[in-house]
Amino acid sequence: MTIKESWLLPEGIDELMPQEAAQLEKMHRTLVDFMRSWGYQLVVPPLVEYLDSLLTGTAKTLDIQTFKLTDQMSGRMLGIRADMTPQVARIAAHKLRNEADILRLCYIGSVLHTLPTGLDGARNPIQLGAEIYGHAGPESDIESIELMVTLLNVSGAVSKMALDIGHVGVYRGLAEFAQLTESQEQELFSALQRKASAEIDSLLQAYDINADAKQMLQELSELNGDQSVLDRAKQVLKKAPQSVQDALTTLEQIANALTQRLPEIAINFDLAELRGYHYHTGVVFAAYKPNSSHAIAAGGRYDDIGEDFGLAQPATGFSLDLKKLVTELPTQKLHQETIGVQWLEDASLHAAVKTLRESGKVVIYQFPGSKTPTTHTLVKLDGHWQVTETGTHTRG
Amino acid sequence: MTIKESWLLPEGIDELMPQEAAQLEKMHRTLVDFMRSWGYQLVVPPLVEYLDSLLTGTAKTLDIQTFKLTDQMSGRMLGIRADMTPQVARIAAHKLRNEADILRLCYIGSVLHTLPTGLDGARNPIQLGAEIYGHAGPESDIESIELMVTLLNVSGAVSKMALDIGHVGVYRGLAEFAQLTESQEQELFSALQRKASAEIDSLLQAYDINADAKQMLQELSELNGDQSVLDRAKQVLKKAPQSVQDALTTLEQIANALTQRLPEIAINFDLAELRGYHYHTGVVFAAYKPNSSHAIAAGGRYDDIGEDFGLAQPATGFSLDLKKLVTELPTQKLHQETIGVQWLEDASLHAAVKTLRESGKVVIYQFPGSKTPTTHTLVKLDGHWQVTETGTHTRG
Repeated sequence: MTIKESWLLPEGIDELMPQEAAQLEKMHRTLVDFMRSWGYQLVVPPLVEYLDSLLTGTAKTLDIQTFKLTDQMSGRMLGIRADMTPQVARIAAHKLRNEADILRLCYIGSVLHTLPTGLDGARNPIQLGAEIYGHAGPESDIESIELMVTLLNVSGAVSKMALDIGHVGVYRGLAEFAQLTESQEQELFSALQRKASAEIDSLLQAYDINADAKQMLQELSELNGDQSVLDRAKQVLKKAPQSVQDALTTLEQIANALTQRLPEIAINFDLAELRGYHYHTGVVFAAYKPNSSHAIAAGGRYDDIGEDFGLAQPATGFSLDLKKLVTELPTQKLHQETIGVQWLEDASLHAAVKTLRESGKVVIYQFPGSKTPTTHTLVKLDGHWQVTETGTHTRG
Repeated sequence: MTIKESWLLPEGIDELMPQEAAQLEKMHRTLVDFMRSWGYQLVVPPLVEYLDSLLTGTAKTLDIQTFKLTDQMSGRMLGIRADMTPQVARIAAHKLRNEADILRLCYIGSVLHTLPTGLDGARNPIQLGAEIYGHAGPESDIESIELMVTLLNVSGAVSKMALDIGHVGVYRGLAEFAQLTESQEQELFSALQRKASAEIDSLLQAYDINADAKQMLQELSELNGDQSVLDRAKQVLKKAPQSVQDALTTLEQIANALTQRLPEIAINFDLAELRGYHYHTGVVFAAYKPNSSHAIAAGGRYDDIGEDFGLAQPATGFSLDLKKLVTELPTQKLHQETIGVQWLEDASLHAAVKTLRESGKVVIYQFPGSKTPTTHTLVKLDGHWQVTETGTHTRG
């Protein structure tokens, strides 16, 4: 399915015609019901907020992605949400803080980006996400990952996927152990993200840091693969500080649980995976379609969020673009049954139409002088209104 | 139900917490299914468009209500939709023009206003609407009005309502007949809208227009009440031009049909009703709760729309604020059954949880060290996982 003929719309802004909209509506319901069955409560944050609130505790990239407006009522700067996660974190920290120890929230809504993100060049995704607030252990990460994968399966849009799992605490701990300056940490981070091994080598050669740290940072970009990578990491990083050991233990717990819970999914552990490094604080994860480098859903832990809203609490969750997911569905023409009805002021006809509609049928009045094609027709046979296939009946 | 504690949000911008969000989600589904059963297909237009497209063929008030943005990709001006009707008209005129003679489209989405509209002071309504394109006769107006009223009934938010029906062609025809200048038409329009009879009188006295026109314009503001007003109007306006007679005939056809189709609804005909005068081209209608002067849903005919998108075609429809409708629902605490489950790596437990969730139950894992209150608990009794009321079971 593609979204066609968007020439009247700004680049990267698209819309859904009836067939795609029906698929979106169906998927929306399936996924909201699915998240609900896991205990996730829907919230509906607004399209715009004060810019400060939208950018609290988030990465700089979000600022660049956010359209800004002047609020003529307050004179303050507003932003159109480019990501709903900070909004839901605000709700969890402020409005629902006394509801429960653990909050499970989900959301679906349009977001807007100043510039295209991702391969499809879209600037108006429909973001769906699910978040857990108030729990710091690996169990909530496990639940987030399991929910994300199962939800993608339930969507029907992804038949096969691979899972990438990392932990930003590994690099963060090593950088601290190596006493990298902020600019060193940043340039090495950039090279690691691109897995530019020659550059990593030459950077590390130039740094005046202890040999153990250098060795471990060097090996970091090699530490990716199946669960055996975690055993190898324990060897390779055995001189790393406690925070790194803890990160590895967490990843091991997650690996063990997911092997049981998602036996059919290929998991790739990547200790140099640094997606959302400036935002995330622990495990990070993403789902990919085979042979694609663009995540269809991604998430991770972001424990520091909520602090600026008055409640620092642990948090983990994921989000995805529902519109993109809908466009991944196989194209299928909806063969919907529709019943055409003559326009008449006839109480028995109106009653028959009402009953049919209440039973879920689509009944369309034919206005005088026009004819909407329908698969069926409501006709009076033997004094009763009856549904016949269009074209096959004789008028009663 | 009220939307509380919005102090962190800009004035007039609100959001829905779990209980309200669940009610919104439920109402959304009910109403989309309802409109679908009438043959209305859902479309999903984007949050932003080029400003030109959003303001095509619309009234000036919409311009003032629309937040503007600069698109850094095109350098052009974008608008955040303040009304989805022009978007859906664009879709009907451009993207779906070859689909059918008659198009029935519906939509639900967030819109944004620069300043509050309506009594509740909200700036971020969720607009729901249904439109018919391609039919000029009274039948499509009748269907629009019937759909609007029945949909409000189905929503459960409105137990009793009154209907106001007018026709902008009456005043327009009289103004033309009187050869009012544009500024005269505008100032008289303004006085009529406010039903300021002394002002109307003094304005008319000052105008140099023919006596018949003066007389008819004077009596216009008196022409409101039940269906008998239409008979009176035929007398009072018998010297009016054909366009006015046609408008009265249309109103009569609509009155007769609605008496049959909506016998329980009190209809007020108001020939000086000029809501949306600069935008509408025929019948206008609105639904009110008893003793309220603020419409809960409103619509009318706007035949000239679509011209700028390459297809001038007749159009009629209505829209309402779904969020407002949800807040009209009686407050009801959701007493939802929830099943708590111990966090265990146990395949038989996971299978039991999956089955329960697939049957629509809400199952919540209890993370180690925390306890989410649930109404029920899944426990192992006699070797099987079973749901018991929380607090009543003994562990098996």
